[in-house]
Parts: sequence; C-alpha cells; structure tokens
Amino acid sequence: MGVAAAQGFRAAGVTAGLKASGKPDVAVVINDGPRSDAAGVFTGNRVVAAPVRWCRQLLGDGSTGGVTGGELTAVVLNSGGANACTGPDGFADTVCTAEHLGAALGVPAERIAVASTGLIGERLPMDRLLPGVSAAVTAATADGGADAATAIMTTDTVAKTAALTVGGWTVGGMAKGAGMLAPGLATMLVVLTTDAEIGSGDLDVALREATRTTFDRLDSDGAMSTNDTVLVLANGASGVRPDPAQFTGVLTRVCADLARQLLADAEGATKEIAIEVRHAVTEEQAVTVGRAVARNNLVKTAFFGQDPNWGRILAAVGALPVEQAQFDADQVDVAINDAWICRAGAASDVDRTAVDLSGRQVSVTIDLHAGTETATVLTNDLSHAYVHENSAYST
Amino acid sequence: MGVAAAQGFRAAGVTAGLKASGKPDVAVVINDGPRSDAAGVFTGNRVVAAPVRWCRQLLGDGSTGGVTGGELTAVVLNSGGANACTGPDGFADTVCTAEHLGAALGVPAERIAVASTGLIGERLPMDRLLPGVSAAVTAATADGGADAATAIMTTDTVAKTAALTVGGWTVGGMAKGAGMLAPGLATMLVVLTTDAEIGSGDLDVALREATRTTFDRLDSDGAMSTNDTVLVLANGASGVRPDPAQFTGVLTRVCADLARQLLADAEGATKEIAIEVRHAVTEEQAVTVGRAVARNNLVKTAFFGQDPNWGRILAAVGALPVEQAQFDADQVDVAINDAWICRAGAASDVDRTAVDLSGRQVSVTIDLHAGTETATVLTNDLSHAYVHENSAYST
Repeated sequence: MGVAAAQGFRAAGVTAGLKASGKPDVAVVINDGPRSDAAGVFTGNRVVAAPVRWCRQLLGDGSTGGVTGGELTAVVLNSGGANACTGPDGFADTVCTAEHLGAALGVPAERIAVASTGLIGERLPMDRLLPGVSAAVTAATADGGADAATAIMTTDTVAKTAALTVGGWTVGGMAKGAGMLAPGLATMLVVLTTDAEIGSGDLDVALREATRTTFDRLDSDGAMSTNDTVLVLANGASGVRPDPAQFTGVLTRVCADLARQLLADAEGATKEIAIEVRHAVTEEQAVTVGRAVARNNLVKTAFFGQDPNWGRILAAVGALPVEQAQFDADQVDVAINDAWICRAGAASDVDRTAVDLSGRQVSVTIDLHAGTETATVLTNDLSHAYVHENSAYST
Repeated sequence: MGVAAAQGFRAAGVTAGLKASGKPDVAVVINDGPRSDAAGVFTGNRVVAAPVRWCRQLLGDGSTGGVTGGELTAVVLNSGGANACTGPDGFADTVCTAEHLGAALGVPAERIAVASTGLIGERLPMDRLLPGVSAAVTAATADGGADAATAIMTTDTVAKTAALTVGGWTVGGMAKGAGMLAPGLATMLVVLTTDAEIGSGDLDVALREATRTTFDRLDSDGAMSTNDTVLVLANGASGVRPDPAQFTGVLTRVCADLARQLLADAEGATKEIAIEVRHAVTEEQAVTVGRAVARNNLVKTAFFGQDPNWGRILAAVGALPVEQAQFDADQVDVAINDAWICRAGAASDVDRTAVDLSGRQVSVTIDLHAGTETATVLTNDLSHAYVHENSAYST
C-alpha cells in the first residue's frame, strides 16, 4: 500500500533511536526497477537543510534553472532531526547516509535521495542512524508502505498514504507534515512512486504541475521549512507508458488526496478552511488573495471562535498592494459557507447569524469582480492547541 | 496632560452609550488656536473606513500624491464601532458627525477630523453618538487628556498618553491600540498636539519621519486595519517657532514613547521582542527581514514557550526571496538576548541553555553580513491569550 503500492517497490520503517519517544524514525523506499526515473521539488527557503542540498545536486531544481530530473534507486528518510543549519559536518552526514544505503543496494551514493525532518540546528546521531538504515533495508517489502509512512511522522497524529490504480499502472505515495504547511511545501516530506513508464523529463513536468495546484496551495501558518521535499520515482514495471497528460492527472489526484490528509492533521486545528477566490485578473492574483486571507491571524482566530467576521477577511484582502492584486475594494463580495454576508464591500442584508460555523469544514468565497480567474487555497484556524504545540516543540 | 498638555488645547472623554460595557466611548480634542496647522498619516489598507476617507479628503494622503497637510480645529473620536465597510450611509454618518461638532465650535465640517475604532461592518448609533459629541464639547478642558485617552480604548488595558516640553513648547499625545499593530499603523488611533509654531507642510514632513521609525516598526501580528489614523495639530500658542529638525526629533520621541506603550499592551502578549537587523544592504531590507521574523507564528510561539529556537528565526529569514533581501544564508549570525547561538548559519559553540527567556523583554539580533544598514522592528509573542481575545472579539 501507499508508497509501495506500485509494482517493483519495497518500503520499510524501523526504530533507530533518533526519537526520544522510541517511536519509528527511519524509512526507506527502494525501487527494484527496471527503470529508475526520478524528479523532485524542494523548499523555496534560502536556508536549506543538508539533505535538500544533496537532493538538488542529484536532481537539480527547476527554481534555479538547469537540469531537472534524474535517476534514483532509493530514498532514505528520517524523523527525529532535520539536519538543517548544521554546517559542512551536517552535509557530510547526509552524504555518509547516502553512501551507506548505496553500498547496501550496490549503487553509487548519487542514486540515493535523503530527506530529514525534526528540530533544526542539531547533528544527527550517525551511530544510531546508519544501523537503522541497514535494518530498514533488511525489512523492506512490498507491504512496508504503512510502516514507512509511520516512521516519518513528527507531530503528525496519523500516517498519510494514498494510491490509485488506472489502466494497469499505479501511483502511490506517503506524506508527513502536520504544521508549517505553507507555499513551497513547508516541513512536508512526500515520496511518490509509480510503475508507469515515464521518462524523468516528463516526470519532472508532471510533478511540478501536480504540486502547484495541491501541496503548494496548502497554507497552514505561512511558515516555510528548510526541509520540504517531494520526490517521485518511476520504474516502468507495469510495462504501460501512459499519455503524459493522463499521468499528470492521476499524479495530481494522489497529491490532492495526500494534501487533504495533511490539512486534516494540521497542528491543533479545529477547522479546515477552503478559500476560493473568484474573478481575479490572473490565477496568480487569485492565489495571492487566498494566501493573504489564509495567513491572517485575525481571520484564523475568528474561525476558531466560530465567528463569521467577514470584516477581517475584507481587511486582509485590502492589505494587499495594488501591484499584487487588482480589484476595487468597493466591489468585493464575501460568502462564508455560501451565505453572502458581504456585498460590494459592505454588510449585505444577510445576517451573520445565517452562517453556521459549528462544523469542521468551512468554505470562504471571495468574489473580486475583477477578471475571469479562480483559485482555491486551503488553510486551518489558529487555535489554543496550535500555540501549545508550537511553543512546546523543542523544549 | 497627554493630548491637552500643550497650551491652547482642550480635550474630553465621555460615555455616549456606544459600548455595551457602558465605558467611555467618545473623545474630542479641540484646538483653540491661534493657528490650526495639521497633518495626518493613514492606513495603507485599500479597504478604508469612512472616517479615514473623510480625513484624507481634508488632509490628503502622501501615499497617493497630491496635497498633504491642512487645517483642523478639532478631532472627534469614538470607540465602540469602526464605521468600516458600511457603504455610503456610513460615510454620511461620518460627515454628519463632523458637521455636528463643527456647528458646536462655529467652524465648517471640513475643519473637523473624525476617527473611529471597533467592530467592522456595523453602522454607528448616531442617536447616541451625536449627543455624546455635544457632551464632550461641554466637558472639554485642558485637564481632559486622560479622559480622552480612556474613551478611545477598545481591548487596551491601560490608557496611553505622553508629553514632552523643550525650550518653551510642548508636544503631547494619546494613542489606542492593543492588537493588530502592524505596518501602516494597524488599528491604531493617535492624536498628537503641539503649541509650537510650525506650518502644515513642515508638520507633514515631521509626522511622516516620526511615524516611519516608530509606529511603522511595530508589528504585532502582521494584520493591517481599515481605520489606522495618526493626526498632529499645531497651534503656535507658545509663540516659539522651533527648527524643523528639532521639532521632528521631539515629535519622534513622543511617538516612540506611545509606540512602546502600545507594544507593552498588545493583546495577550507575554513578551516584548525587539528584532535588530544589522549589516543589511539597505534600511528597507533590514526592516523587511525584521518584519518577516516578527510575523512568523513559529518564532512567536517559540518565544511564548521561552524556547530560544534560533532555527525558526533563520528559516523565517531564509523564506524571503532574494529580491526582497540580499544576503548569504551561510553567513547569517543570530543572537537572542545577546547570546550568539547561531554563527554563519549554523549552531555556534554557545549552548541554547545560555539564553534566559524568563523576562518580558527579549532582544533578537540578526547580522546579515551583507551591507551597512540597520533597523529594529518591535513585536510580541503569540500566546494563548492572543488566541482567546481574538477568537472572542465580536461574539
């Protein structure tokens, strides 16, 4: 299941002792071929963890131009430490981890991707990590997807896996991330696998399109992590070579499934809020407006309080400079759970008591009346539990 | 004292019945001359409350070009309602309020500034507001500064006033604002007065310079209000015409005093955090970096938890795109309360236990090693009380 659902993949999750809790903390995903096409997208943060630097060396990074896509035989992931802001020694630890798994699988270190998650600024205990990697290789099976997804959890309360089979080929995947969801995929690790036959160039294009409209539109708290990584591996084991557009569609559906699971498990959230922005001049402006609302603490606390405070939504939209979003503030309509309580920038004749915010799912609709484009951004409320979890995380 | 400390000013605060609590909610500040020079700065939000639209008509707004500065005889302020997102009827209410006070003082409505604060989206009860304005005019005295400052409070826990006398002339002022402190002076009302003789053009320049380095560098939660207003009135009653640079310096000191009071009273805060950014390429870039840290919820919750989590600070800095701040992430140093726990983008040999975060005052120092410019941004932590106050505000 999950990341090992497609033919020719094995996975495992084991306990190496990186976490004080004694829970599983090392995962591997192994591609048995025949092909080893791969692609990745990474955090946009300029402070990048050692494993992200390593993966970019292997696969390139579309955001900086140059080659994207490459070949991967396996991915090793750990929770219990981000290996970020650890200097040259931390980077050496990442390379050492890749070399260790490469040796076990008989491939060069350059065929091994590495991903880490946890506290920033501390070295990984290599004396525990490397034996854990060896144990994970031994344990890896086609049934190991759930264990792998469990081993990458940090503050997640549930493991996140997904898989979809169409026309004889499968896309599967796993994700972790329960907070810091933000553009650029903050503190999110995702590994996707497929037994479709698709070259690394097409794979890279498909991955960027799939993440652009799914993970990239999750914005839980506006923070952006140093470690965000989304990898996709394709081995062609099904013998089917799908049309690239169809492949992109299926990959997007799996990513959307995982993204919804991330939203549902965001740290301390009591609401899942979908902010749809209509009639923007461009799709990018629609996303910008949605993000501005998603990141506004006054809006987020209002939803925690089940208060349909549309004035805060309008104020969040209005705070954007004209060059980022073109609209006339006196034209903007706002609905909460389909009750249009604000029309043309002012209270409508719909009373705020018409809005029922008792449920977990909330929809916000903002009509800018400025253009033809639409986008939806997903976020959570800001709750006491969010403050509690994030004030207590490293201590 | 406060806003009536300078010669030739009177003030009052009365209870008109706008607040359900029965606390004072209408204030006036009256300038008895001989001169009536004035200037104002207002929110940068594109969703602007009716009183802000009115004041901009009177005084202009430097942000949109055109005339700035003008003449004012009085200011009327109310808490208990923002008069924002209330449409043309709400604007008519503001004009009516100005006409009412103008008639009482024997001047045109165009000599009366209006400021409002409270919930967005609801009309003001004019049948209570206008009698309150009349009562405030009757009550206004040179001793009324404290009452006026009390009447503009919303979630503020203390009234905020300041005054400074130098060389025979005085600058006084009052402020309200206990949350939503943000660039563009969010949900902050400030009235400053002086008996110095200074023309409206010089007054406008002085006010913009004074607010730029004080109120504009408060960033409590990144939200920006629809109602932010800072007004300054000068009557020349002292007979002293100070050098404009000296006047700007004194005005800035009064603004800095009020800004510190706002920070100290920010909603639910347990920490006052000064973020100094050193060696930026430009002052604007230093401010941008400081704001990015000030607005990051993960940083803010860490300080609430008394956790010197410098990795989150570095990640917040790194999330800025290159075009907004030039620096090499591998060169950045970070100190918390003067303990340099991060050097060159990685953990230094100073242990995090060296940082004592038990006190209310916190200093963060970020050295970008990129240029020569410095700026300091002030903010608060993100606490349970912030979530509580802001989730319960309108309900």
